[in-house]
Amino acid sequence: MIYPPALEALMAALRCLPGVGQKTAQRMAFQLLQRERDGARQLARSLDQALDELGHCRDCRMFSQGDLCPICASDKRDDALLCVVESPADVAALESHTDYRGRYFVLLGRLSPLDGIGPEELGLARLAERMADAAVQEVIVATNPTVEGEATAHYIAELARAAGIAVTRIAHGVPVGGELEYVDGGTLAHALSGRRQVE
Amino acid sequence: MIYPPALEALMAALRCLPGVGQKTAQRMAFQLLQRERDGARQLARSLDQALDELGHCRDCRMFSQGDLCPICASDKRDDALLCVVESPADVAALESHTDYRGRYFVLLGRLSPLDGIGPEELGLARLAERMADAAVQEVIVATNPTVEGEATAHYIAELARAAGIAVTRIAHGVPVGGELEYVDGGTLAHALSGRRQVE
Ligand SMILES: [Zn+2]
Ligand SMILES: [Zn+2]
Repeated sequence: MIYPPALEALMAALRCLPGVGQKTAQRMAFQLLQRERDGARQLARSLDQALDELGHCRDCRMFSQGDLCPICASDKRDDALLCVVESPADVAALESHTDYRGRYFVLLGRLSPLDGIGPEELGLARLAERMADAAVQEVIVATNPTVEGEATAHYIAELARAAGIAVTRIAHGVPVGGELEYVDGGTLAHALSGRRQVE
Repeated sequence: MIYPPALEALMAALRCLPGVGQKTAQRMAFQLLQRERDGARQLARSLDQALDELGHCRDCRMFSQGDLCPICASDKRDDALLCVVESPADVAALESHTDYRGRYFVLLGRLSPLDGIGPEELGLARLAERMADAAVQEVIVATNPTVEGEATAHYIAELARAAGIAVTRIAHGVPVGGELEYVDGGTLAHALSGRRQVE
């Protein structure tokens, strides 16, 4: 052990971050201690505050500092539309880049039996309750076009049909501006099987 | 602002880490809050502890929890040899991979006038004091073979000569096991200009 215990402990703790191995943790620790001491102190405070104050919205499971997130608390959103996504980042992306103004439900994952992630972990009972609201007319399934995302979409579609609500799936295909030869195989297969009549 | 303030603050704080932009900070924050809550709490504690308890060794400027680091405090090291490196990581690398058992001096950087890093920032006055110790017989300059590292090496060599001590520079060239065609140009130029007579 070349480094003092407090430095070894910091490098070990940094490895809980995604994609951070031993070399990166070392580089991070040096930068924090040598050039970012204020930032490091702020990071410690922010971690504690986020752990203490952040929970999930009662209605949509988005990260929330209160019982309800701002979107669920708003009376300006369209109750007829309920968009189901895998991650809080998906909500952020849809809010930033589209004019969608319905409601959301965040799964915080996707069905993955091998990882022990089933309907309970994704809060699907709460989603079924949301669907039981008479105002909801369309469930938009926006899970990712992976094997697990598709299985999850299928499960949610069944829930919606059981509740007598229309279900739609966002379109997947070649990105706008993308070139066929650079698109991955799965996307290309999706784009082909999802082809539409030219009008 | 889609995310609650405590989450925005955490994502902003994570960006003080080297190489962490907005997307990575978001992914890190989600992982910490959803799957690494214990790790996140530990990281906050480790940051505070490292900031509170770590300083630099009085003699060599290595990170140290006490006045002297274990290497400087040891009476098992060879006082005749003083190896000058840029970073604490260099000490760790030399200790792990070589049988060097002399002393060290850590610059915590390299001369870089444009960034305001001069002799004072590198503790070169303290290094000159170390060289004044009658026990020191050889200064081994192990700064990196970059333009700034070479300028730093040159400066240190002058200090050593002024103190009447032998100066050596670690060898730079094609890595053992490396192939010429994959070696970067600077290394190759170093290897060629540093060629030795075959005996
Ligand atoms: Zn909500
Ligand atoms: Zn020391």
